[in-house]
Amino acid sequence: MEKLNEARKSKHRLTKKGEETRSRIVSAAAKLMFEKGVASTSVEDVQIEAQVSSSQIYHYFNEKRELVKAVIIYQTEKVLSTQESLVIQLDSMEALKTWRDAIVQLQNERQCRGGCPIGSLASELSDIEPDARSELEAGFMKWENFIRKGLHTMQERGELSTNANTDELALALLTTLQGGLLLTQVRKETLPLEVGLDSMLAHISSFII
Amino acid sequence: MEKLNEARKSKHRLTKKGEETRSRIVSAAAKLMFEKGVASTSVEDVQIEAQVSSSQIYHYFNEKRELVKAVIIYQTEKVLSTQESLVIQLDSMEALKTWRDAIVQLQNERQCRGGCPIGSLASELSDIEPDARSELEAGFMKWENFIRKGLHTMQERGELSTNANTDELALALLTTLQGGLLLTQVRKETLPLEVGLDSMLAHISSFII
Repeated sequence: MEKLNEARKSKHRLTKKGEETRSRIVSAAAKLMFEKGVASTSVEDVQIEAQVSSSQIYHYFNEKRELVKAVIIYQTEKVLSTQESLVIQLDSMEALKTWRDAIVQLQNERQCRGGCPIGSLASELSDIEPDARSELEAGFMKWENFIRKGLHTMQERGELSTNANTDELALALLTTLQGGLLLTQVRKETLPLEVGLDSMLAHISSFII
Repeated sequence: MEKLNEARKSKHRLTKKGEETRSRIVSAAAKLMFEKGVASTSVEDVQIEAQVSSSQIYHYFNEKRELVKAVIIYQTEKVLSTQESLVIQLDSMEALKTWRDAIVQLQNERQCRGGCPIGSLASELSDIEPDARSELEAGFMKWENFIRKGLHTMQERGELSTNANTDELALALLTTLQGGLLLTQVRKETLPLEVGLDSMLAHISSFII
């Protein structure tokens, strides 16, 4: 059954029109789940938002769980491409500050709505959907790697002390970013994000040689 | 209507038995909403968990929204009393480290389930329930004040440099704590919480005289 479904879906992925319909469904689901949460988004809601028939949705996704998984992958890719569009590499204090400012600006543009697209999914799903949790963990790992790579480059160039544990600093920075996005959503102002990231960047800069 | 309901509820709050029933309903709702989220918890679920009749619930809470508000207040009080039971005041680096270790231990005991009881409510409700958001903001403010008070005491005693902005440091520490609880829930290990808090405490200790 599993294989049959996979084959069925692969087949659909091959046609351009099928690919487009599937993308429209996933981006509609992502939008709704970001706005009101996964539990409050029904397959029918997605159907209306994407302007497709119920049979079209079930053609691509056997159950809501599969749609949620596709949304996590979609949001992870979107977050990572946004990150990479802000700065190419986080390999200097200047780049880190540019990145910090761009994230703060992004939340201001969003009027502090929505928090983190994958952080909010993580909060809702981590304990109740093991598959979703694994997918989210993998997404965060990619994000962490993006940060780590920059810090590692700084260390390799001799700009960051060898005393700095770049693995830990990368994770600590992502952790603070997540908390900042959440508290910004609660307070409807970017102050928590700003002071959180500034403190973490000050800590990182303490390792600058 | 509003006043009548308030009066009705006040009356119930006066009897000991009514108070007990109301508490049982709120703690049952808090448990379910913590485990599976607000949207996935129906009033009927709460009724079964609390072992009360539907009319008993509606006697105290006109609608789910009111029950959610009571849950936020309940969880905020619980979080704050837990915080105060970990350390009386966060007024030394030693106290901050004791607090950090106790929070990490607590997540380990919970097997990294559930994240933060008010952070997870915040992620789910901040954008869709304005009243809940205000209540959550007030809850986080109390938590931040608890942290700020300790740092402020350190500064008053001359242990922390006057260059340290204790307001910002307190908010930054709470921000990192929130991110750490979320990523710990995703990864099912306390590493994000540990490295996040350790980095922030290192930053705070850089202001120690």
